[in-house]
This record gives sequence, C-alpha cells and structure tokens, in this order.
Amino acid sequence: MNSFTFQNPTKIVFGSGTVSQLGKLTEAYGKSILLVYGSGSIKKTGLYDEVMAQLKSIDAKVVELSGIEPNPRLTSVNRGIELCRSEKVDLVLAVGGGSVLDAAKAIAAGALYDGDVWDFMMQKAVIRDALPIGTILTLSATGSEMNGNAVISNWETKQKRAFGSIHAYPRFSILDPTLTFSVPRDQTVNGVVDIMSHVFEQYFTLTPNAPLQERLCESILLTVIENAEIAMENPQNYEARANLMLCGTLALNGGLISVGTQNDWASHGIEHEISAIYDIPHGAGLSIVFPNWMKYVYQERIDRFTQYAERVWGIERGNKTDEELALAGIEATRAFFTRIGAPATLAYYNIGRDNLDTMAKEAVLFGPLGNFKKLNEADVRQILELSL
Amino acid sequence: MNSFTFQNPTKIVFGSGTVSQLGKLTEAYGKSILLVYGSGSIKKTGLYDEVMAQLKSIDAKVVELSGIEPNPRLTSVNRGIELCRSEKVDLVLAVGGGSVLDAAKAIAAGALYDGDVWDFMMQKAVIRDALPIGTILTLSATGSEMNGNAVISNWETKQKRAFGSIHAYPRFSILDPTLTFSVPRDQTVNGVVDIMSHVFEQYFTLTPNAPLQERLCESILLTVIENAEIAMENPQNYEARANLMLCGTLALNGGLISVGTQNDWASHGIEHEISAIYDIPHGAGLSIVFPNWMKYVYQERIDRFTQYAERVWGIERGNKTDEELALAGIEATRAFFTRIGAPATLAYYNIGRDNLDTMAKEAVLFGPLGNFKKLNEADVRQILELSL
Repeated sequence: MNSFTFQNPTKIVFGSGTVSQLGKLTEAYGKSILLVYGSGSIKKTGLYDEVMAQLKSIDAKVVELSGIEPNPRLTSVNRGIELCRSEKVDLVLAVGGGSVLDAAKAIAAGALYDGDVWDFMMQKAVIRDALPIGTILTLSATGSEMNGNAVISNWETKQKRAFGSIHAYPRFSILDPTLTFSVPRDQTVNGVVDIMSHVFEQYFTLTPNAPLQERLCESILLTVIENAEIAMENPQNYEARANLMLCGTLALNGGLISVGTQNDWASHGIEHEISAIYDIPHGAGLSIVFPNWMKYVYQERIDRFTQYAERVWGIERGNKTDEELALAGIEATRAFFTRIGAPATLAYYNIGRDNLDTMAKEAVLFGPLGNFKKLNEADVRQILELSL
Repeated sequence: MNSFTFQNPTKIVFGSGTVSQLGKLTEAYGKSILLVYGSGSIKKTGLYDEVMAQLKSIDAKVVELSGIEPNPRLTSVNRGIELCRSEKVDLVLAVGGGSVLDAAKAIAAGALYDGDVWDFMMQKAVIRDALPIGTILTLSATGSEMNGNAVISNWETKQKRAFGSIHAYPRFSILDPTLTFSVPRDQTVNGVVDIMSHVFEQYFTLTPNAPLQERLCESILLTVIENAEIAMENPQNYEARANLMLCGTLALNGGLISVGTQNDWASHGIEHEISAIYDIPHGAGLSIVFPNWMKYVYQERIDRFTQYAERVWGIERGNKTDEELALAGIEATRAFFTRIGAPATLAYYNIGRDNLDTMAKEAVLFGPLGNFKKLNEADVRQILELSL
C-alpha cells in the first residue's frame, strides 16, 4: 500500500429519533442558521416541523433556502452564499439527500471566499475555510454526510464538477434510518447503485498489497446486495434501511476503505458529463456506465475482477478461465442492477449519439480520466458508445 | 443494530519516512513539548535523534519523561503531570507503543484536572479537557494511536484500570511501519494477539442485524492472520508490517468496526487482573484467557461462533453439528496462537492458584463483566481455573 494521510472529524449521530438531538448539536455554533433543503418533501413527512421545533428550542434565527435541485445548481449555491453574507449565518444546516448536502458545502465554502465559488470546481482556487456545516440525511447514497466532497452543476456552461476539502466535512450529521422509509423505490435503487459505485471506484485499483482495504470494500458490497431488495420490498424495514445507511456513509468516508490505494473515478467522470447535459439521476447514470467501464478495462488487471466475481458474487471458479470468471462477475453486476430496476442503456432516457463528442471532450478537460486504465477522449467515447 | 454516536478526530499520517512531518504537525500546538517514551530503545534505533531534530527545526522547548513501563504506572503518569504544570507544556508527544501512548493520555488529561488523576480510572471523575496529544507509534497492537482509551496500573493497590474520553484522542499520529521492523518476535506476537482480541471483544456480541460490522471485524481478523507469520519470519517485510499496523489502528478505532453493537470486554477485564498482579505482557495474558473465555461462553449464541469458524478460519461445516463447528473455530484460535508462539496457560509464567480469589473479586469491582455472557465472580474464577 502507499503512504497516506487520513482524517475524518465528522460526528455522526445514528438511529431512530436522533433528530431530537439537533438543538443540542447546533447550539455550539451560534444562533443564525441557514436551513437548506430540496423540493419540500420534508414538509410532507413532518421532518421540517421537527427541525424547526428543535431550532426554536435554542432560540435560533432561521433563514431558509429551499428548492435545491437533484443535481444541485450553481445558481442555488450563489443564492445561499448571498444569504449567508446578508444574514451573518453561523451554521449551514442541510436537510435532505446528497444534493442538498453538496449544495450546503459549496455555500459554506463560498460564503468565506472572496471570489466566484465556481473557482473551487474549476480547480482555480483551493478552499481555505468554510462556515460550519450540519446535516440531517434523508437518503442513503452519496456519503456526503461524512466527507468533504461536493458535486455542483453549472447549467449555463453545462458542466458538472466536484471539489473536496477538509473544511467541508460536516461538523455533525444526524443519520436516522426511519427518515428513509418514505424514499420512493426508484430513488432507493439509485442510492444503492451510487453506494456500490463509490466502492467500485476504490476497489478496482492497481495498488497491490492492500488486503484489508479490499476486504472492507467487499464487506460493504456484500451488505448492500443483501439489504437492497429487502428495503425495496419493505420500505419500512428498519434494519435494512439502517444497514444501507451505514454502508452509504462508510462507502465514501474520506477514503477510509481505500487508504493508501489509488482510486479510479473514471466512471463518475463519465456519468457527470451525461447528467450535466441530460440532468438524469446520478445513480441511474452510474448503473448505465459502470458495467460498460468494467468490460472496457478488466483486462488491465484481471485478478481484481476474478476476486470480485468470487468474493462478492460467490461465483465458483470451477473450470472457468480468468477471462470467463471476470466476465461472469461483470455480468452479475449488470444482472443485479437490472433485477432491482436500474437502467442499462442511455436509450432508457432517449439519449442518442447527439452529444457523445461533447461529453467525451469535456470528460478529459483536466487530463485523462481514471487510474485503473487511463482513459483518453477516444476511450471515453467508446464507453459511451457501449452505453447507448 | 442499536443507535450510536461516533466521532474520531485523529489525523493519521501513515507510511515510510513520515516522521519527517513531525515538525509541521507539531507547530500548531505551541513550543513547549513533553516528550514521553519508554526504556530507551528509540535511542538505539535512531528515532530519538530524528524526533529531536524535527522538534529543533521548529524551535521547540523539549522536556523529557522516559522510562514508561510496559504496563504504564500511575507513578510515571504523576511525574508527567508535574512536568506539564511546571514547564507549562503545550503538547504531550508520545513516542513508543501502546503503553507510552496510554501514559501520555493520562498525563494530558491529568494536567488539566484539579484532583487525583486516578479518579478517572476509578470512575470518580469524568475527563472534561486534556492537553493536545501527538504520537509516533513503534508497535502495532493497542490502537491507542487513534482512540481515546488508556489503561494505567496502580502498583500500590495492584489495580489496572482503563478510561476513555473524546478529549484523549491524539490530534495526530504518525504511523511508520518501518519503525516496527526492529520489534522483537515476542512483542510482535503479543501485538498480533492484542489486535485480534480487540476484534473479538467487538465481534462476539448479542446485538443482531449488524452484518456490515461483522464483516469489518472478519476483514481485520483475516488480514492479521494472513500477515502475522510473514512479519515474524521477515521482520523487515514492509507490506506485512504495514498491514498489521493498519489492522491494529482500525481494530480499536473509537468503535468504528462495531458501531451500534454491544461490546463484551470481559476477557480484557480478566487479563487486567492478571497483569495487575503479575505484570505479564497484556497480549500474552489475552492469549491465555481468550480461548478459555470462548469455551466458557460460546453456547450463549452459538451462531456467532459457527460463523466465526466458517468465515475466519475457513472451516467447512460438512457433517458437523453447530457445537462441533463452533468448537473447531475456538480450537483453530488456540492452535494459531500456539503456532505463533503465544502462551496458552498461566503456568507458562509460573502463576498458580494463589491469587485467583483476589483476581476474580477485583474483576467484578464495578459489577458483572462482559455482555455476551454476564460474568460474576464465580464465572471469572472458573475461566481463570481453565487458564491455569
């Protein structure tokens, strides 16, 4: 394994009813709070009222920013930054899924930056400080609740870009699995694919001698596969929802499960280009792209894929060649995604060849994508072709 | 799984040559440093000179406290506390194994406490603050480098007691696997047993529905078993030493691998009574006690032990009954400990029946031990009898 530095300061408060601790958790950071949320489903479920009651109990002054989009947009982030400045906000509180959390991080960092927040996404500036962030998670997927990453879409330029910073780790995150009981089936599915994809990006590495990290990755994959269909069939199964939530959090946890190894992230890069133009759900895009990425790259180091087939999918080697075993694991991935109802082709969203060139070009804007196999523009285009 | 709160703020800097980052890591905390270490082996290896050069590079004023014992003693802790006060220490820097780190934690907490530091160990007071702590680890074993726990021995009262506090987490820990190249074979063995025992304390639980946590535990056990003998046969094998070091750190990492489950810790409680009187190495004591604890309790929930046998030791069920399979796993544990040269009986240290009553009585001072099976004084005595 390689040398590494790891730190993850986020405090997580996990379990049913833990929103009741919000007031106490918030108090230390001041009274002026920017409450960031999405389309308003938190008003239907009663979570909004619960949050407001908690904030009232500590005499907080609450400013609201609602309507954060599923692929959160720069325009919303800029609205939040203005509110932070005009209302002298002490804490940015995100209530929602990964998109809301990501927007809150960009707002918190942008509020203390004397320039255009998009600079962080374009690698023109580094985050030096951010307002404190707290989160209440309502969807198991991105891991944003316990890392310093955010992905923001610039709708004007049709770009979707990410940043990561130690300053953007939430100070606290409330993880109550019961808040995911009402998540619709398709969003549960997208979350499952997203969690598994985060693990894939770390698991498929050329870095040798990282047996613990490999097993940590496999542990999450096995547990997600085991619990996904239980949660889909019975959305109120607490244990399945709790297992998925914990898996989501640990899958992208500042790199905990892959310390000292080189990650890939090509598939995420490709997916970002698709949803930057077509605004499709991130998890759905990953379901389309990832098995095709696997097929395109597995020969680079086939033993990673044979191990994946055996340990994650329980496929016995028998008389299979490495090639057959690796491909069986990739097919099992596609079959699982299909079984839970995740899409397999861009055609599912009526996406054709129109923008393949643009997407391939944008994907390699900062250089070749990925590390397991370095992908140039032509490689990306081929994977997109496979995904049609 | 149960509800839980988790936070682990320690920054770890892992890899060969990372001691070169000490100056930069230390600088933020002030110039007056208490350097805590053990018998002086760090002077032989050259580590002491390297540390002093780093501290000199930031113009630090260094006060030394050497001679920390393998089971660190309250008298040493009190000497350290006096130094912190008289020298207005800003940071306690521990260089050594778990004992040195534990002593540093007690010193850092005691320095800011207006009372007897032993109060923390006797549960008479709670730690409200501590001086910042930094560590450089030289032995893979206790996990003290990334948790808030410490175990201190009171030689006057023959008591060995633990505390845990969020304030006692190191601010940073430097983990350089090459620093463990010179660890003697018996200490490597004790470290291996200690790491595995930390996992056992968390893995053998009655808490249902924690499949991810179970797999995280199994991941560490498998990796330790795989790497222990490689490190023993070739002490300078970097990958084996690195894998053991990472396993040690994650095995007792503020409870990361067992969040939301009830831990046991009875075997540690029993071992502490043995080494409180006989001053034997902690890992050696655990090697003696743990398999006997397993045999004494496995029937409480036999499926935990059959899963252990199958997943960790790869024992096939075949025609075995649950009972046979569980016992095969326990026997495999004992056989592994014996194969790597860890002791199996108290007789190995010429310990007889003399103090069994005292040990059993002290072990339950604060109530029954453990959770997998609640052990009263008579139970502890029986496990000690089995260990003769």
